[in-house]
Amino acid sequence: MSDYKLAVLAGDGIGPEVMVEAKKVLAAVSKKFDINFELNDYDVGGIAIDNHGQALPPETLKGCEEASAILFGSIGGPKWDSLPLEQRPERAALLALRGHFDLFSNLRPAKIYPGLEALSPLRADIAASGFDVLVVRELTSGIYFGQPKGMEGEGEEEFAFDTMRYSRKEIRRIAITAFEAAQKRGKKVTSVDKANVLVCSRLWREVTEEVAKDYPDVELEHIYIDNAAMQLLRYPNQFDVMLCSNLFGDIISDECAMITGSMGLLPSASINGSKFGMYEPAGGSAPDIAGQGIANPIAQILSASMLLRFSLGETDAADAIDAAVMKTLSDGVLTGELLAPEKRDQAKSTSEVGDYVVAQI
Amino acid sequence: MSDYKLAVLAGDGIGPEVMVEAKKVLAAVSKKFDINFELNDYDVGGIAIDNHGQALPPETLKGCEEASAILFGSIGGPKWDSLPLEQRPERAALLALRGHFDLFSNLRPAKIYPGLEALSPLRADIAASGFDVLVVRELTSGIYFGQPKGMEGEGEEEFAFDTMRYSRKEIRRIAITAFEAAQKRGKKVTSVDKANVLVCSRLWREVTEEVAKDYPDVELEHIYIDNAAMQLLRYPNQFDVMLCSNLFGDIISDECAMITGSMGLLPSASINGSKFGMYEPAGGSAPDIAGQGIANPIAQILSASMLLRFSLGETDAADAIDAAVMKTLSDGVLTGELLAPEKRDQAKSTSEVGDYVVAQI
Ligand SMILES: CC(C)[C@H](C(=O)O)[C@@H](O)C(=O)O
Ligand SMILES: CC(C)[C@H](C(=O)O)[C@@H](O)C(=O)O
Repeated sequence: MSDYKLAVLAGDGIGPEVMVEAKKVLAAVSKKFDINFELNDYDVGGIAIDNHGQALPPETLKGCEEASAILFGSIGGPKWDSLPLEQRPERAALLALRGHFDLFSNLRPAKIYPGLEALSPLRADIAASGFDVLVVRELTSGIYFGQPKGMEGEGEEEFAFDTMRYSRKEIRRIAITAFEAAQKRGKKVTSVDKANVLVCSRLWREVTEEVAKDYPDVELEHIYIDNAAMQLLRYPNQFDVMLCSNLFGDIISDECAMITGSMGLLPSASINGSKFGMYEPAGGSAPDIAGQGIANPIAQILSASMLLRFSLGETDAADAIDAAVMKTLSDGVLTGELLAPEKRDQAKSTSEVGDYVVAQI
Repeated sequence: MSDYKLAVLAGDGIGPEVMVEAKKVLAAVSKKFDINFELNDYDVGGIAIDNHGQALPPETLKGCEEASAILFGSIGGPKWDSLPLEQRPERAALLALRGHFDLFSNLRPAKIYPGLEALSPLRADIAASGFDVLVVRELTSGIYFGQPKGMEGEGEEEFAFDTMRYSRKEIRRIAITAFEAAQKRGKKVTSVDKANVLVCSRLWREVTEEVAKDYPDVELEHIYIDNAAMQLLRYPNQFDVMLCSNLFGDIISDECAMITGSMGLLPSASINGSKFGMYEPAGGSAPDIAGQGIANPIAQILSASMLLRFSLGETDAADAIDAAVMKTLSDGVLTGELLAPEKRDQAKSTSEVGDYVVAQI
């Protein structure tokens, strides 16, 4: 019997209600696979600002440090948008957690599920050709964290500056993540850069090619970010793993998420070199629909599955959750946003979907 | 009778053949509107490397300096892709010309033409809702030109760095371009940034809001680049003018171009503070179809129209070209790539399309 301590940070908006469903699912695999979870809840984001005066209180951080992994909900909302930038949930909690735990490896799978092609904003024939991409995004370096960053000068000559920065080591470790992932998938890595303009991208290309030599079974392709943004619309099924720097991955992963048309189904993982990680839905806190019991819990449930797979190595339990989710979707047990307008009366609630997943395990 | 000297830089691939059609159209408006053009041809890009050993030879640059504006074709191709980056056509000619003439204001219109909705890779109902965007991209600053840029350190700690940099002055002048353009269009500016991460974006937001005060009839909205990349797919018709920094504009303008599904119709303008400008198709040199007489000349023809409008102030002639192009499209006089596969036998050649446009003037 394995024992794990998990930090559960449900956060704001729909976070708490979808987290309830993920916990049910964890309870189900706990029983079935004889895994013991100690789930400890901590405030994060807006609720933490309200309760403790800051988005990432020390007790939350301490709880995360003591855990094997973090199951994260979603944070932010209009209530906290007028705070100074540095104190807002997204920066003060999300970027801080990424930096603190060196969660450099961000995995964002995006796929069009069979039967849900009509949700994609892409033309029917293009969506029908299929889309199943894993965006591997570098998450703790690049222009997000590069120094120096600031303002200088006076009057109209005053200027702002940010530094994009990548070391060989930083590029190598994320490239390795991408190639290892590709070996288990479509065996193709498309590295996204702007090597015709950025020195960082040139080093990115060089190191990626070095890493590729250790993975002869995986094809490596380079694409400029502007072209990638285009090709994703026209020939989305040409991609398997897309390897991106922090900024480019931010853009490309959101474009990929939108291409599926079903953000409520997409989990994500942010992992460090010791397999410690933070797992969260790709979508936001959706304050407009919070508290109504209509939010889709699947992304949160699949985030729990990624946690089991990548941080705990509990592959069987993760596989069981993934299969249960597939069954739930193919049985048409769906929240409203996945249904055509004329079928919305068949929509299931957040907890009905969660219960159905549990029943399949 | 007005007299203008124009530098014509046809370049590589399909550049020369579509330029022939643009020249025909200039000849037609010359007659009709009593404007005298002195058209001087110069080598640029790959052909200039072949003939003169460099992508932007001094005589070409001198010719541009002596002209009222530059009509540019397209450059590059596999033949020159193995050259060191600094010598390649795109950097050595395109970036050099932008920098040399301080062409900070890049206008990239993208729209879905009535009747051509099916070309869009977006879902039919979304494409039918309409799309007509002008991307206003800052073109001579930001991370493209910011200093320092380079490499430092040793071994695995060796790192590359690029600097994103914007002064108040640089932001102000491109924001003014965007607001003035919006006044003549849909009266809405969406400023694209990453203000939750970049100091440059925060200054960008601040200055954009200052400029907005002078244009009370224009609505200003801010959007994060990742969200913009998504919203363009789901609700493309919410946008009118999209104001972007150099890097973000590179990505967003290509995404917009692809959304139209008809790159061969899209012109672009790069203008400086004295209304000197360089005008070129949005698409590339398409070496795969060069020399076959099937390339679409419309983007090149509309580039000539933008030149007349923005650098020469010859509004009547520009309007006449735009109207002639609209008529050509609505009469179904189209090159093959705009036609459904089963209608390709009705495709017109490059010169047939050019002649038809001329006949409408
Ligand atoms: C909230 C923001 C700072 C964050 C990012 O840009 O990384 C978000 O967009 C994301 O992708 O997780
Ligand atoms: C060729 C390249 C340097 C250029 C750019 O990034 O500006 C191109 O993509 C463009 O958009 O004109």
